[in-house]
Amino acid sequence: MKILSYAAQNATAPLAPFKIDRRDLGAEDVQIQILYCGVCHSDLHTVRNEWQGTTYPCVPGHEIIGRVTKVGANVKKFKENDIVGVGCLVDSCHSCENCKDDLEQFCTKGPIFTYNSPDKHTGGLTYGGYSNSIVVDEAFVLHIPNNLDLAATAPLLCAGITTYSPLRHNKVTEGQKVGIVGLGGLGHMGVKLAKAFGAHVVVFTTSPNKVKDALRLGADEVVNSKNAGEMKKHLNSFHFILDTVAVQHDINAYLVLLKRDGTLTQVGVPPEPLSVHVGSLIFGRRNFSGSLIGGIKETQEMLDFCGQHNITSDIELIPIQKINEAYDRLVKSDVKYRFVIDMATLKEVV
Amino acid sequence: MKILSYAAQNATAPLAPFKIDRRDLGAEDVQIQILYCGVCHSDLHTVRNEWQGTTYPCVPGHEIIGRVTKVGANVKKFKENDIVGVGCLVDSCHSCENCKDDLEQFCTKGPIFTYNSPDKHTGGLTYGGYSNSIVVDEAFVLHIPNNLDLAATAPLLCAGITTYSPLRHNKVTEGQKVGIVGLGGLGHMGVKLAKAFGAHVVVFTTSPNKVKDALRLGADEVVNSKNAGEMKKHLNSFHFILDTVAVQHDINAYLVLLKRDGTLTQVGVPPEPLSVHVGSLIFGRRNFSGSLIGGIKETQEMLDFCGQHNITSDIELIPIQKINEAYDRLVKSDVKYRFVIDMATLKEVV
Repeated sequence: MKILSYAAQNATAPLAPFKIDRRDLGAEDVQIQILYCGVCHSDLHTVRNEWQGTTYPCVPGHEIIGRVTKVGANVKKFKENDIVGVGCLVDSCHSCENCKDDLEQFCTKGPIFTYNSPDKHTGGLTYGGYSNSIVVDEAFVLHIPNNLDLAATAPLLCAGITTYSPLRHNKVTEGQKVGIVGLGGLGHMGVKLAKAFGAHVVVFTTSPNKVKDALRLGADEVVNSKNAGEMKKHLNSFHFILDTVAVQHDINAYLVLLKRDGTLTQVGVPPEPLSVHVGSLIFGRRNFSGSLIGGIKETQEMLDFCGQHNITSDIELIPIQKINEAYDRLVKSDVKYRFVIDMATLKEVV
Repeated sequence: MKILSYAAQNATAPLAPFKIDRRDLGAEDVQIQILYCGVCHSDLHTVRNEWQGTTYPCVPGHEIIGRVTKVGANVKKFKENDIVGVGCLVDSCHSCENCKDDLEQFCTKGPIFTYNSPDKHTGGLTYGGYSNSIVVDEAFVLHIPNNLDLAATAPLLCAGITTYSPLRHNKVTEGQKVGIVGLGGLGHMGVKLAKAFGAHVVVFTTSPNKVKDALRLGADEVVNSKNAGEMKKHLNSFHFILDTVAVQHDINAYLVLLKRDGTLTQVGVPPEPLSVHVGSLIFGRRNFSGSLIGGIKETQEMLDFCGQHNITSDIELIPIQKINEAYDRLVKSDVKYRFVIDMATLKEVV
């Protein structure tokens, strides 16, 4: 089936209307009319080939909210008209150690991402959510709580799970002191979730103009990380720090703020390596770790948790025609805190 | 009491005989005649002020085996003639969170190290084990199993606990694949201990001439870490890696060998920071951590374990008069695998 999308034809071309094929509905598949799609920084990195490895045409988008239009013969979890989500993953081997542990993002055969991954069904590459519809194996489709604003729920599928998973994995709970480094798409979700888990949340930012917003989002304290005196007050005091910064920065300045046995988990991925003083780790038996989105089971758990606690992303809704402008603003961090595309604006222009 | 020691008077002077004061026996103190003292690379770093902060005269030595010559009125755990050990720590606050958790090495008031630390008893600095006797609070004195060779037991007090603690903390056990990076004083103890815990032990070395020795020490496999093809075979396969290398090296080459959720713990401390690619951590949710010696309770546990499994260090016994020559050989890694000083050779020359 030919459907309409927005695609990049090469690393320097703007995104523009483009017709793509979606596969016919298989027995385990769910066909989804896409209502909203969040705009993740990964979309931009991939479209502009900043991580290398992009194949064109490229249709990005992995924060998808939609309505089920048809289900395959063997589909059990979904029916027509269900409101559903699709995140960063659309397939995996189902049989390796990591898949069996519900961590499909670490599938040893290679997880199939929602876009720019080999597509076993078509023989081509997967195309993402900047499009009118998508066909996905039901095992990778999520139920969306019915009390949440749908547009603002879209970013939970990537920014939400990317921050939820390391907070849970590191057992963040009531009474703990938790740091969030950087207040962007990921960071603002980290603040909301850590707060909902009962932690005392400290936001680190280099932008004094983000202080007010951080407090509004639920932070208990905000620290200007450029101020050495302010930083020093927090030495050896954090149970856990979530670092969402995707550019070069001094990681030791944060590692030394961890208590003994504390962990700093990096979810932002700077292109250049970070310099780690071993002394920052051995004094206090501290841990520096990384985390990548989350598995499907945990993504559903996160969505249910957000439904119960009424947590969504702060968004700016845009028509698809503004996507290239949105990318330019994204580069300047000029968004509070996530662009979401209203996919109803993607129509055939006759 | 004036006793004989070997001390450095400044960063470039050789170690030479020097008389120091030991405090009078307090009610909780144990007076120990030193029989053997291991030679740790930290001794050399401190003597030569390579970590800065050395105060002279400096008497190094924190791998001490001795015989109790006198005990204070309130001492309960030791009696005259007991064979005992003293490691890197001789005091701590006893009341902070870390001390209460038996992790005195992380005492928040600052642990008191066996040498070059402020000494609350004398008002000066602590003097280490390159001397004929020492007076230590019984809380920091260890029982030595009676079946072990005493000279070869001395290095357990630092090299032993430094490797035992992270292996235990990371729950290394039967059936796991464990890597040891570097085969020196620490590394060779890491091999023996990981093997005794039942792990499949892989040694990484850049010295082809260490292969035979690694196997003799108990390694199941030896990998030449300069050989990219050999390294690649071990991608995503290690539960735990203990890195004992204290010079600059490519840590990412080892991080990517960890399985999902695996940990690499650094116990060697390179003077320059290590470059960590965040991708090495996020793909596989891997951990990079540090560890510092171990607490007193765990040091006793380690000694008892070594007694049960008949584990000691491979050593070269030297008279104190050869200590400067030994330091020069240490710099060239020319020792298998630890120098130990026979302290009976430290006598007044009339």
